[in-house]
Amino acid sequence: MPDTTMTGEAMYRLAEELFPICRSITGEGVRQTLKIIQEHIPLKIKEVPSGSSAFDWTVPNEWNIVEAYVEDQEGNKVIDFKKNNLHVVGYSVPIDQVMSLQELQQHLYSIESMPEAIPYVTSYYKERWGFCLSHQLRLSLKEGQYRVCINSSLTQGSLTYGELIIPGETEKEIFLSTYVCHPSMANNELSGPAVVTYLAKWLLELPRRKYTYRIVFVPETIGSLVYLSKNLKEMKKNVVAGFNISCVGDERAYSFLPSRYGNTLADRVALNVLTHKHPEFVRYSYLERGSDERQYCSPGVDLPMASIMRTKYGVYPEYHTSLDDLSLISPAGLQGSFDVLKDCIKLLEINRKYRIKCLGEPQLGRRGLYPTISTRESGNTVRNMMNFIAYADGSNDLLDISEIIGLPVDQMYPIVDALLKADLIE
Amino acid sequence: MPDTTMTGEAMYRLAEELFPICRSITGEGVRQTLKIIQEHIPLKIKEVPSGSSAFDWTVPNEWNIVEAYVEDQEGNKVIDFKKNNLHVVGYSVPIDQVMSLQELQQHLYSIESMPEAIPYVTSYYKERWGFCLSHQLRLSLKEGQYRVCINSSLTQGSLTYGELIIPGETEKEIFLSTYVCHPSMANNELSGPAVVTYLAKWLLELPRRKYTYRIVFVPETIGSLVYLSKNLKEMKKNVVAGFNISCVGDERAYSFLPSRYGNTLADRVALNVLTHKHPEFVRYSYLERGSDERQYCSPGVDLPMASIMRTKYGVYPEYHTSLDDLSLISPAGLQGSFDVLKDCIKLLEINRKYRIKCLGEPQLGRRGLYPTISTRESGNTVRNMMNFIAYADGSNDLLDISEIIGLPVDQMYPIVDALLKADLIE
Amino acid sequence: MPDTTMTGEAMYRLAEELFPICRSITGEGVRQTLKIIQEHIPLKIKEVPSGSSAFDWTVPNEWNIVEAYVEDQEGNKVIDFKKNNLHVVGYSVPIDQVMSLQELQQHLYSIESMPEAIPYVTSYYKERWGFCLSHQLRLSLKEGQYRVCINSSLTQGSLTYGELIIPGETEKEIFLSTYVCHPSMANNELSGPAVVTYLAKWLLELPRRKYTYRIVFVPETIGSLVYLSKNLKEMKKNVVAGFNISCVGDERAYSFLPSRYGNTLADRVALNVLTHKHPEFVRYSYLERGSDERQYCSPGVDLPMASIMRTKYGVYPEYHTSLDDLSLISPAGLQGSFDVLKDCIKLLEINRKYRIKCLGEPQLGRRGLYPTISTRESGNTVRNMMNFIAYADGSNDLLDISEIIGLPVDQMYPIVDALLKADLIE
Repeated sequence: MPDTTMTGEAMYRLAEELFPICRSITGEGVRQTLKIIQEHIPLKIKEVPSGSSAFDWTVPNEWNIVEAYVEDQEGNKVIDFKKNNLHVVGYSVPIDQVMSLQELQQHLYSIESMPEAIPYVTSYYKERWGFCLSHQLRLSLKEGQYRVCINSSLTQGSLTYGELIIPGETEKEIFLSTYVCHPSMANNELSGPAVVTYLAKWLLELPRRKYTYRIVFVPETIGSLVYLSKNLKEMKKNVVAGFNISCVGDERAYSFLPSRYGNTLADRVALNVLTHKHPEFVRYSYLERGSDERQYCSPGVDLPMASIMRTKYGVYPEYHTSLDDLSLISPAGLQGSFDVLKDCIKLLEINRKYRIKCLGEPQLGRRGLYPTISTRESGNTVRNMMNFIAYADGSNDLLDISEIIGLPVDQMYPIVDALLKADLIE
Repeated sequence: MPDTTMTGEAMYRLAEELFPICRSITGEGVRQTLKIIQEHIPLKIKEVPSGSSAFDWTVPNEWNIVEAYVEDQEGNKVIDFKKNNLHVVGYSVPIDQVMSLQELQQHLYSIESMPEAIPYVTSYYKERWGFCLSHQLRLSLKEGQYRVCINSSLTQGSLTYGELIIPGETEKEIFLSTYVCHPSMANNELSGPAVVTYLAKWLLELPRRKYTYRIVFVPETIGSLVYLSKNLKEMKKNVVAGFNISCVGDERAYSFLPSRYGNTLADRVALNVLTHKHPEFVRYSYLERGSDERQYCSPGVDLPMASIMRTKYGVYPEYHTSLDDLSLISPAGLQGSFDVLKDCIKLLEINRKYRIKCLGEPQLGRRGLYPTISTRESGNTVRNMMNFIAYADGSNDLLDISEIIGLPVDQMYPIVDALLKADLIE
Repeated sequence: MPDTTMTGEAMYRLAEELFPICRSITGEGVRQTLKIIQEHIPLKIKEVPSGSSAFDWTVPNEWNIVEAYVEDQEGNKVIDFKKNNLHVVGYSVPIDQVMSLQELQQHLYSIESMPEAIPYVTSYYKERWGFCLSHQLRLSLKEGQYRVCINSSLTQGSLTYGELIIPGETEKEIFLSTYVCHPSMANNELSGPAVVTYLAKWLLELPRRKYTYRIVFVPETIGSLVYLSKNLKEMKKNVVAGFNISCVGDERAYSFLPSRYGNTLADRVALNVLTHKHPEFVRYSYLERGSDERQYCSPGVDLPMASIMRTKYGVYPEYHTSLDDLSLISPAGLQGSFDVLKDCIKLLEINRKYRIKCLGEPQLGRRGLYPTISTRESGNTVRNMMNFIAYADGSNDLLDISEIIGLPVDQMYPIVDALLKADLIE
């Protein structure tokens, strides 16, 4: 099992390594990313040809890009993809043309209110080309002719995703999903792949797992749709809880976004852990969704999935700009998310219904479970044990009991162990 | 379809025309009133003989009145039914007698705290006679002898009510009920008959109606009991929602009074419309009831009926006095009620459960449902559509979805239309 | 039926009579106590031999004590069981020995923060001896040798409890339980036995009882476990509601502690009575339990039992010390508890579901149930009756209707009587 004090650093280093790669929903960037993750965990990399159907959608052509720039009359590259891959609108068609600034302006994207930020813009399903740049750079462009060059290709190819199935004692599954389609941005979205990679490492090293783990690294939307269209029947049968993992790298907040009706096991587990460990967490409505839970929780799909995040996408100011860089995330930020998700998984693994085996209260004294010397702390321990027993009536699982008696589940583990050892519960 | 800007005026004119008639729970006043309404809508006027049973009740004798006055020694008619039909206690037995002021006082009704108001008093089920007058007039009466004359009759006759059945595509019914038993008072109750008459006109002109409409103009209590005793079996089978319509003419408030358990379709529809259109509306408890919902929602009858009012009966100071006159109601007041009830009916007509036909989110872009240019407004439209789709899972009707996503139902109509056209929902 | 103004005084006198007796969970003190109670009600006194099993527990040896003291070198009895039976740790083994103060200190119990109070300490299941004393007395003990004498016995004997079954018209039972194992303390616990004795007297004198009453006076914990182990099957079949009666003698508060899930008939009845009669009552959680509901409400036992108290055990400062003496309880304190419990029992006796026999509202007028003269009070009476009728639909019992219409159940009794007499409900 990895030393958890080191995990935050390791996750951060993985994010650093992946940061420069130009990812999109298809193309070499995704493949390169998955190959690096494969050095950590035995991911299977799968390819789905352009044109394949996924429910209401079709896999688009594969997009790749070699270089892209805008050059002024003096031959200066005033905008250059090599400096920041956000400079090119995702899925830009190729172009090599000289035009006036006025003409060029129709294809430029910047944010007036954030003059230093390069925005992140894509156009997957409408052919278009464009450049993104900081508003201050845009204002500095002089009248004149510019050479515009995008050396990209949009061709029959494939969509790439990674899948790891870690078998457990039962066919019932926990599902973890994150995405690998964003270019150089850190919180959204390299924090998700980094945390999920290390969760997978930790799971692989566990001596036993009740559940099977299905872990995917997909391009957002089209990737989750493709994956669902291939695996839905099996997943609907087996998945008991899942988490969509995105924006898990900063230190500013913990956030929760529920499933469509907010009543699944994943919701209950996430809320229990966050309530006890990070009671200040922010609770969103499903109406504020914006990631792959849109597909996983859609009508008819109905997977029991919730989202645990640090600051939610769309809420932090650097979101979808070049300011979402490696300074926004931190080892501690990643570690916090990792710990919460690990707690959720541990809780899922141990959660079950218990029943006290005797009628009336058991006599704890003759089993050494009742302290000889009474202190405030031992009083609490006995009280927690008696409260646990009072509701261990076979109708409540650990989550229910935790909610009723107000005790964090991890404080119940020693109680459960002691009572199992004393043969008092089943 | 009538020009709605004119409907308020037209309803007010109808109330004006009906105002002078002396109505009671039986008699010529009711017949006259229904005949005038018949000029607008094809009402069937029905007669039920005195002595007929209606559940626990019996139709009383028919009451009619020609004239009534109190004359002083000088021959001045100090109280005169011709000036205001509220002057006579409803169902007064005939009398022609000279008596002292002291004796007369036993039969006078006034309100000390409202010295200018003539109260509305009836004695349907105990034989009695009496006069109502303003307290200031009462105080001005001098000692002496008075001739008291009430030329009324209480004889075997019938109870009269009006019924209009407007057929729809199904046998399932919407039920509208109002009453026509109050003498010259405007809000309670000519506003109800005026609004219901124009709702009926509007319904008759609709190109199609999913529901059949059962519309009644009855005397309060005994009339609704008589009507229920004749039609209950059919109504229990068919009525899906109904509204008791009373006190719908002033401009001071909107009010809601629920059914007995507050959980019928009528309650949900009324609350949805009022919440979105008049969020300041006043919400009463069924314990504060006082109109024909007492019968329609009684145990064993259990019709799904709610009440939408402007200021509730019993709450406004002019209630059941001569101050509830034509100045209390207005075209705008009537129009407001008409519009809310029309919205309720439209919502009932369109309300049903929808199901999205594809798995995962549909690709709105290739159907032209996703805007090319992103503005805040278009963002809202897409978000509303996606939220609608998220809950259009076949288990929710429009009302449910409206409550979940917080969108008024009338803003859902274009979404439903667009999605039906794109063959995305069923 | 006893004159209730005298009951408070009589209960207090019984507590006074029982106060000096040294009780424990077994022994002569319990027998003596039950014999005195037997002078009031035909209690059956039962003996269960030491060593008998009770679920997870075993009846301990019987403990009796003749005398106990600590004598200084001058022959002064500085601690003497004869002065206060709290001075000896309950279940102390015999000893007769001379020892230094230092050695003695290991066996002394006092409360530093309450220097005048003698604490109540027991050691039922671990052999031990000890003395309890006020902290100020402890501080005054001089260095030197002390003779320590406890003339007690711990031998095969039996556990004693009292049971009274008062038959009713049905086999269905109301269960009342209190305990008789505390030495000289008044609120906890002679108030319980005093109140239960007088409730039993009152029940015995009732002309008719729908329910059978099962009333027990047991030692706490082991006594209730013993009783349950002998009677559980029958009790689970018959008990519809029960009350654990403890700490019912002071005047400071009313308190409520629910059953394990708080949803039994006993909970509903207790909450209804307290809400209407003592709305300032304190509501505890089952997590704050500490009396025999720990056994009666344990998983698998699941009796429908709630606790009504004055100030709850553990909450008042004198709890489990010599300060819980006869000055802490009062005739008025006992009477208040007696009245609340009597109200609960009356409510249980009368509570059932009623159904109005006619459709629509009944015509109260022709039955003399509608007042001829309208006053505010008569208006309330009619309104309460109409509200009662509105919800007397066969699905609600009196408790439900009380909650819906906000009327105390005892104000419903005359309504129920009048409607039954008029043959309007069944």
